[in-house]
Amino acid sequence: MIKTKQIAIVGASGYSGEELVHLLLSHPHAELTAVTSRQYAGQTLAQIFRKFAHHPRARGLRFSEPKAELLAKQAQIVFLALPHGVAAEFAVPLLQLGCQVIDLSADFRVRSAAVYKDFYAHEHPAPELLAQAVYGLPEVYRAQIQKASLIASPGCYPTSILLPTVPLLRAGLVQPTGIIADSLSGVSGAGRKAELDYLFVECNESVRPYGIPKHRHLSEIEQELSVAAGTSVIIQFTPHLIPVNRGILTTLYLTPAKATLDQVTACYQAAYANEPFVRLLEGKALPDTKNVVGTNVIEIAWRLDPRTGRLIVMSAEDNLVKGASGQAVQSMNLMCGFPETAGLI
Amino acid sequence: MIKTKQIAIVGASGYSGEELVHLLLSHPHAELTAVTSRQYAGQTLAQIFRKFAHHPRARGLRFSEPKAELLAKQAQIVFLALPHGVAAEFAVPLLQLGCQVIDLSADFRVRSAAVYKDFYAHEHPAPELLAQAVYGLPEVYRAQIQKASLIASPGCYPTSILLPTVPLLRAGLVQPTGIIADSLSGVSGAGRKAELDYLFVECNESVRPYGIPKHRHLSEIEQELSVAAGTSVIIQFTPHLIPVNRGILTTLYLTPAKATLDQVTACYQAAYANEPFVRLLEGKALPDTKNVVGTNVIEIAWRLDPRTGRLIVMSAEDNLVKGASGQAVQSMNLMCGFPETAGLI
Amino acid sequence: MIKTKQIAIVGASGYSGEELVHLLLSHPHAELTAVTSRQYAGQTLAQIFRKFAHHPRARGLRFSEPKAELLAKQAQIVFLALPHGVAAEFAVPLLQLGCQVIDLSADFRVRSAAVYKDFYAHEHPAPELLAQAVYGLPEVYRAQIQKASLIASPGCYPTSILLPTVPLLRAGLVQPTGIIADSLSGVSGAGRKAELDYLFVECNESVRPYGIPKHRHLSEIEQELSVAAGTSVIIQFTPHLIPVNRGILTTLYLTPAKATLDQVTACYQAAYANEPFVRLLEGKALPDTKNVVGTNVIEIAWRLDPRTGRLIVMSAEDNLVKGASGQAVQSMNLMCGFPETAGLI
Amino acid sequence: MIKTKQIAIVGASGYSGEELVHLLLSHPHAELTAVTSRQYAGQTLAQIFRKFAHHPRARGLRFSEPKAELLAKQAQIVFLALPHGVAAEFAVPLLQLGCQVIDLSADFRVRSAAVYKDFYAHEHPAPELLAQAVYGLPEVYRAQIQKASLIASPGCYPTSILLPTVPLLRAGLVQPTGIIADSLSGVSGAGRKAELDYLFVECNESVRPYGIPKHRHLSEIEQELSVAAGTSVIIQFTPHLIPVNRGILTTLYLTPAKATLDQVTACYQAAYANEPFVRLLEGKALPDTKNVVGTNVIEIAWRLDPRTGRLIVMSAEDNLVKGASGQAVQSMNLMCGFPETAGLI
Repeated sequence: MIKTKQIAIVGASGYSGEELVHLLLSHPHAELTAVTSRQYAGQTLAQIFRKFAHHPRARGLRFSEPKAELLAKQAQIVFLALPHGVAAEFAVPLLQLGCQVIDLSADFRVRSAAVYKDFYAHEHPAPELLAQAVYGLPEVYRAQIQKASLIASPGCYPTSILLPTVPLLRAGLVQPTGIIADSLSGVSGAGRKAELDYLFVECNESVRPYGIPKHRHLSEIEQELSVAAGTSVIIQFTPHLIPVNRGILTTLYLTPAKATLDQVTACYQAAYANEPFVRLLEGKALPDTKNVVGTNVIEIAWRLDPRTGRLIVMSAEDNLVKGASGQAVQSMNLMCGFPETAGLI
Repeated sequence: MIKTKQIAIVGASGYSGEELVHLLLSHPHAELTAVTSRQYAGQTLAQIFRKFAHHPRARGLRFSEPKAELLAKQAQIVFLALPHGVAAEFAVPLLQLGCQVIDLSADFRVRSAAVYKDFYAHEHPAPELLAQAVYGLPEVYRAQIQKASLIASPGCYPTSILLPTVPLLRAGLVQPTGIIADSLSGVSGAGRKAELDYLFVECNESVRPYGIPKHRHLSEIEQELSVAAGTSVIIQFTPHLIPVNRGILTTLYLTPAKATLDQVTACYQAAYANEPFVRLLEGKALPDTKNVVGTNVIEIAWRLDPRTGRLIVMSAEDNLVKGASGQAVQSMNLMCGFPETAGLI
Repeated sequence: MIKTKQIAIVGASGYSGEELVHLLLSHPHAELTAVTSRQYAGQTLAQIFRKFAHHPRARGLRFSEPKAELLAKQAQIVFLALPHGVAAEFAVPLLQLGCQVIDLSADFRVRSAAVYKDFYAHEHPAPELLAQAVYGLPEVYRAQIQKASLIASPGCYPTSILLPTVPLLRAGLVQPTGIIADSLSGVSGAGRKAELDYLFVECNESVRPYGIPKHRHLSEIEQELSVAAGTSVIIQFTPHLIPVNRGILTTLYLTPAKATLDQVTACYQAAYANEPFVRLLEGKALPDTKNVVGTNVIEIAWRLDPRTGRLIVMSAEDNLVKGASGQAVQSMNLMCGFPETAGLI
Repeated sequence: MIKTKQIAIVGASGYSGEELVHLLLSHPHAELTAVTSRQYAGQTLAQIFRKFAHHPRARGLRFSEPKAELLAKQAQIVFLALPHGVAAEFAVPLLQLGCQVIDLSADFRVRSAAVYKDFYAHEHPAPELLAQAVYGLPEVYRAQIQKASLIASPGCYPTSILLPTVPLLRAGLVQPTGIIADSLSGVSGAGRKAELDYLFVECNESVRPYGIPKHRHLSEIEQELSVAAGTSVIIQFTPHLIPVNRGILTTLYLTPAKATLDQVTACYQAAYANEPFVRLLEGKALPDTKNVVGTNVIEIAWRLDPRTGRLIVMSAEDNLVKGASGQAVQSMNLMCGFPETAGLI
């Protein structure tokens, strides 16, 4: 008999907060007891997100001001869906009060406070916690996640890049140099922000790169790739904005280290054949975001180009699910001893 | 006083044919005298493309069966907007009958019949014409286009890749090896074909790579890059389908040959500062297809990444204008001695 | 303890068939044992609909040729997601073999074979079954559905029109004359058909009315409105195609029969306050398809215009869920004695 | 020989201002000499709207602060693309300084200051000018526009409703009572405003009514319909927001006054057969915004429903062209004695 856990979400009014609400309302072993939002405090969940109004478990929920002491009484596990810098302010007291914390911001993803400052342009707000945070990528850190009290849930772009790349680097099948990741993201990746750049008319019938050449997500991507490779890895990363609500499609350009296509295929099968949320594509199939949107699945396909000798690996995920909230729930399942797929299939 | 030319379009019912009609109806020195379509023969232009019904010059036009002898009487210049393999069937008699031919298919883009067969999987239908065909990229072959009788107008992807790359290769500023072109295309690039893959529901909220690793456009891209580099060039090219009607966004990954950013900038300015349809972006601006859709302009921006040493070049164009019909009209202007921007600005 | 039922879907490769698969794979009391498709017979479900590949219950499923005798051995309940005219061919033998049949086509929605012929332009294929078919609108025919062996599941437009209108007509609060229904539908409503009209490029950035003035759905709409009003009702119905994948937004123009706004509100509350899938909007809220897409909920709002005296009622639903497959599953739940919301919330 | 006029645009940074710039840059008899924007004053036109950077006539243009005295020196004709209430502040001094003014706001559309206050909730800012303002609908007020110094250019919804309805009311072919206008608008109709409701993610895959039952545009619609009918007309109007950048599709429900379909057709042909921007659809064709987007054309089709006796009239226009800036340029052409289609075809 699995024991239900009480759950709170701090910052539940952004897109990833909303997706967390969606997933946790239907989770068989979670009871959502608190949702916070400074902007909407006092209003019911159903008033702000009308689509939840028909969920029986949404009925009592009302947005509150985020207060760590109260949250610690309401929940054993707290998700933080807050901007970087702000998340750490809540993580510190919540951990002290005995909660387990799953942070969807970037605050605890980078192990070095110096790297954090380099990429995020301010001092790390709680460097003393960095050592205990576990990077919440279950396919890579499952055992550590199971024992963690503080999860740094990965970013959307990092997930789409790390899952296809880490096994190959670990196995030494690709060079750790010269890696290129070209990514396309839906507009929800920009968050629920009232800015001209993200208006319908400005995004529809538009495609554009942005944030190059030094996107903040590079800090966690390169950290994890370096761990996998056993050497420092610097990559090229180009994000683009495309007119879809959800979805990230990443195309990776890798240089094989004398590896054959069969070795690559075997490596992926060894790493992921039993993973519940990794879909290795066979035959002529190529990733398509429409096959993963609304799910916690990442699709991966690969081709060895005989003309160039390069290995092309492509992945597709839902930026708000496997790229954010679904993955965070997957970590929660592991931390709580729930079935890893609970509430996610 | 500029003398008006009579113009015919063979295959005017596809997307690039429709765009040719649009451009030529408003061209100050062109008179559209014939449009052909086997499917719609006998119907008026306005019945099939209602949006042209209000153009005074569209009123008399009716689709006819394509017949070279008749076309040669109706027009001095004939655009072929036909599938590859079919275009050559019309080019041969039309040239013999004294017409100038601007072919938007791939039939005359590749100079070698063997390469054509390798990429298009059938014998070249008119290899004897390959020597006289001029690749219709005005920024590269302006002088030759002015004297040509047969133009092989470039493909949409090739244009988006060649214009940013050729000047750098010519100047020796980038290595001819290891070039990667990652391209995103709107759905009109697939043509007006009733196939499940291109239904609204299958494309909307979807992003996907396709046609890798050996897309047919590679044949002309590598041919032209090799000419520019003075050595054989093999590139990596990954096209993706994104849910917009029009537009191609290409991101190029290049390796500088000891070049500085200033040298790259100077090279682009020398090549394109006076080009009427190339927009070099300054400052923080990055290409966005919404700024070029409906125009014959290609936008180009570049960044030297100090972390990786790589040169990132990005371009945006309208696949149906600069990537097809607009560029073909630009070639026509050059062939006829019209102002190069006539009917295009 | 609820006993699981075995379920088959005939015609599982269209959009409503696909949505049925989606709903039934996760249904707590249903076991999907057979999916048929002439086109895809022999291929696995996961090969055709990759997004189901990760569902544990999808693994054994393979498309088969539809054969009534075999289906009757595999399933107790059979959903027919077939074109009108074809559905009846399967309904007849399946009922004889003891299956319960839920038909998503129009074949059994109209009680009169003559009306069917008038609107569908061919003889009714099984008029002897019309008397036993129950119109599967649970909010109206719940008791009958619970005892039915043949369900005629309503069309998408009819659901969006009937649920807002039937209670008002029954209560005599609006005139049965002069009703206008103006509806906007996503492109999935046209089915998975390779036709030029439904290509991405032809639908994106396009809005258009179609099928006026005598759309086939009028036959079932007017039948049910007439029952509710106790008199013959003829309505005006204008469908439009809009560039979204899913969703129907219907705006109804009604003439109050001396009713006040409070009476209308009270009527809706009496009819629907306890309905699990009807959301009556309060305050300033108006229906928005994005709040119902992916759910079995229909949203309804109403305004009495003091300037014109007219009652405006608006509804929003997902055409593939409440407008098709979700509603069919809701009927299945009622027929089987499952909780009505099983597998739907 | 047509004499060129100098033109200024006040408020050139919104969507209709941007469209005015687009049209006037290519106008054969207009010279755009000033564009104002408080927000962007000091920046070049090309910096803000990069797509104009390649237009030779855009090169010298720089946004300035709007100052009537200066504008009167720079231009003979001034377009006001400002919010209502603000436009009048500029119209008063500009007229005094001898300019002709074409106002795209609502400030001078309603002839009664009391009606204005009723719908716009503030006192009319310049009631003394109401008598001299001409409602800029060329198909209705051509002669008056030719002699006007102040044009109140119609709103986007009003244009889509008035052009199909006015001729029928004038001819007494439809009843002046019970008129319903159901309209669908692209998101650019909401203006370039950084509000959550108009974010890509909130509009894409969404359809919603809004602003009912008393939209501000009703004031000018009913005024003009009343003039046409010779009696006071009150209509029902329901606007909806749909996920396209541009386009309005209006469906009108009218009651014939003993008119036959042939009489309606004859009425439209008499009114519009020679109009350069009205396209009367024949045969089975129905309006589609994609056939008018980017043009100054309005498409109109009509059906008499034998089942209900009602007349259904549908129209499609580009909300930013025939619904705003194109129509304003059409008025300018009339005021200046230019060919009416100059710069618009």
